[in-house]
Amino acid sequence: MSQTLDIISDWRRFPTRHRIARAEIAGGLVAVTWSDGRISPFHFDWLRDNCPCRQCVHGQTREQVFEIIDAPEGLAPSEAWPEPDGGLGLAWRDGHQSRFEPGWLRANAYDAESRAERRTPPPQVLWGAGDPLPTFDFAALAEDGPDLLAWLTALRDAGLTLVKNVPVEREAVMTLARRVAFIRQTNFGVLFDVESKPNPDSAAYTGVNLPPHTDLPTRELQPGLQFLHCLANQAIGGDSIFVDGFAIAAAMRQQHPDDFHVLTTTPMAFWNKDTVTDYRWNAPLLALDDTGRVCEARFANFLRGPIDAEPEAMAAIYRALRRFLAFSRDPALRLVRRLEPGDAWVFDNRRVLHARTEFDPASGRRHLQGCYVDRDELISRIRVLERELGN
Amino acid sequence: MSQTLDIISDWRRFPTRHRIARAEIAGGLVAVTWSDGRISPFHFDWLRDNCPCRQCVHGQTREQVFEIIDAPEGLAPSEAWPEPDGGLGLAWRDGHQSRFEPGWLRANAYDAESRAERRTPPPQVLWGAGDPLPTFDFAALAEDGPDLLAWLTALRDAGLTLVKNVPVEREAVMTLARRVAFIRQTNFGVLFDVESKPNPDSAAYTGVNLPPHTDLPTRELQPGLQFLHCLANQAIGGDSIFVDGFAIAAAMRQQHPDDFHVLTTTPMAFWNKDTVTDYRWNAPLLALDDTGRVCEARFANFLRGPIDAEPEAMAAIYRALRRFLAFSRDPALRLVRRLEPGDAWVFDNRRVLHARTEFDPASGRRHLQGCYVDRDELISRIRVLERELGN
Repeated sequence: MSQTLDIISDWRRFPTRHRIARAEIAGGLVAVTWSDGRISPFHFDWLRDNCPCRQCVHGQTREQVFEIIDAPEGLAPSEAWPEPDGGLGLAWRDGHQSRFEPGWLRANAYDAESRAERRTPPPQVLWGAGDPLPTFDFAALAEDGPDLLAWLTALRDAGLTLVKNVPVEREAVMTLARRVAFIRQTNFGVLFDVESKPNPDSAAYTGVNLPPHTDLPTRELQPGLQFLHCLANQAIGGDSIFVDGFAIAAAMRQQHPDDFHVLTTTPMAFWNKDTVTDYRWNAPLLALDDTGRVCEARFANFLRGPIDAEPEAMAAIYRALRRFLAFSRDPALRLVRRLEPGDAWVFDNRRVLHARTEFDPASGRRHLQGCYVDRDELISRIRVLERELGN
Repeated sequence: MSQTLDIISDWRRFPTRHRIARAEIAGGLVAVTWSDGRISPFHFDWLRDNCPCRQCVHGQTREQVFEIIDAPEGLAPSEAWPEPDGGLGLAWRDGHQSRFEPGWLRANAYDAESRAERRTPPPQVLWGAGDPLPTFDFAALAEDGPDLLAWLTALRDAGLTLVKNVPVEREAVMTLARRVAFIRQTNFGVLFDVESKPNPDSAAYTGVNLPPHTDLPTRELQPGLQFLHCLANQAIGGDSIFVDGFAIAAAMRQQHPDDFHVLTTTPMAFWNKDTVTDYRWNAPLLALDDTGRVCEARFANFLRGPIDAEPEAMAAIYRALRRFLAFSRDPALRLVRRLEPGDAWVFDNRRVLHARTEFDPASGRRHLQGCYVDRDELISRIRVLERELGN
């Protein structure tokens, strides 16, 4: 039976909610019966691979040093038993021993029921013109507490937030962005200044109307979060417009399923126009995850390259594209607001299309500063905060 | 017939190699017959969408301001003709006129033949232990010339290069990286220092053997290029090892097609272990592009999370994983070399697995500095250099 074995635990928390009642070796599997009656089968290699002992896992980095081919093919345990803490103990035929904490084992069990429990994705809160705008106060986000978590969660689930009372100072937007993580640099710099410029290399740097778009669809990975902080907005025009790309997708899926299918399956070309860079990427306007949920919108009409598809498909592609554009202009989907100095938009650039009305640079100053942070960083930050706040 | 129309040309070069001999309107299409006999059909919406005139395209940014729904559905040209320069002229029923340069139109035509011509991807040069290592001299890369292009092309096609005579100074690796583009920051910083550290948050920062891996498989987009510059290497051990992930994939595809299929279709979990970040990403070990070519390897055994799959699939997954690990240890695939101060490895981190042998931090100093640049930047830089050098 069990000798005392060190376990090099993950930094993640796996509270014990169920204990192992029984463990049986049969048919190449260890079948574990939990206190609530659930039965979880575990393949021998899976268990050996995940052994958390001090020989298999580095004590400081907590990273695995063992590789599964270090164990012979067909390695089996000779004995399996419930540990006093409700976990699983195993003795292997080659003399190795393994012990698994009950919370960890339950959290990672791969019977159908356990897998289904893990498959609950965060909600997608769709919105349009009349819906409330998740609004936060800059000062409340300075601490790693519930306010910060509420903001990050709104960013994940609704994709659009307004932060008020950001200091009206250059680079204050970086302070805000760093509440999430480090900044993703692009060819426009670490920070970019959105204002009318004499030799613009992007429509953003003119006074023209900017139709609804995501930034940098020309890149394999579009920037996740976009921050836009208002330093001055005295010009005539230049209102902000937001359209929820996932709301467009939901409407198309329901009302125009053929067009929806075209947009989720047809790679569209996105090319920038510049003397010193030549970015191109092909991807559908709407991406689905492996469960069929819409997980990304990618669109900037002014950055599209010529559509490259079979001639027979072209009519359907243009019909779907026209439909998408029509939704992007639908007043019912457009949240319109004028940004005041000290306001900052923070939104999911892989979901939310943003736009601005034309403005007259001669009528007054308009100056936004912006930057990007990737989605990985948002999700990691939420996980760590949830750990720390005990959620 | 034609009035003189401005064309706002792309910055890309589209030399005229074929002229339009005939243009006919029929069946909702403009059928263009080229001087070499090729026939290219163009859908009306496609042509209207791509109109390069000064009304449709912004004169300074060269970005499109017209959106296809600004034209009525069913808009058709009343006349189509070959222009004197060999391009296409169109008069639309609503009074608009369009003119297309012959080089641009030919380059973007979407008849089957034209599409096939564009489908030639860059070569994938596979390599193993005995193959020559593309080696470059730091000084020769200082200018935007053929040497720089040769290095970038080797990075794209072979995925592994050695740069000699990089100054043995801190941050010199940034000078080298910036010959491609700006640096991609990560949670390890803009620059990272690979040396034995007292409180390591990664196996890289210990003296242990690092098995073949890609960096940051825990991120949705793994960093594209990795730079590792040697400042000191006096310790016993610590040799560099590289394995071409695409060579492993090719061998598996040929010799073990079932295992190859499992690795290209089964999402594997990658999780970092850390107190302040909690990155996770699920993706197959080998990714295929839409033509079926392997385009990415993603693997770090020490960053794998528990495999989450149907119990019925687990045996096949472990068989495939064991096979992959066995190939990663195959001496015939392993390029082994000891880095000297002033040497820098530059490689495609989404293709090449890198490893190092154990070293004894007490036996002498070992210090590498590293950073990342994304693949988008490499490919854009190659395109612009090719433009400038007239390739």
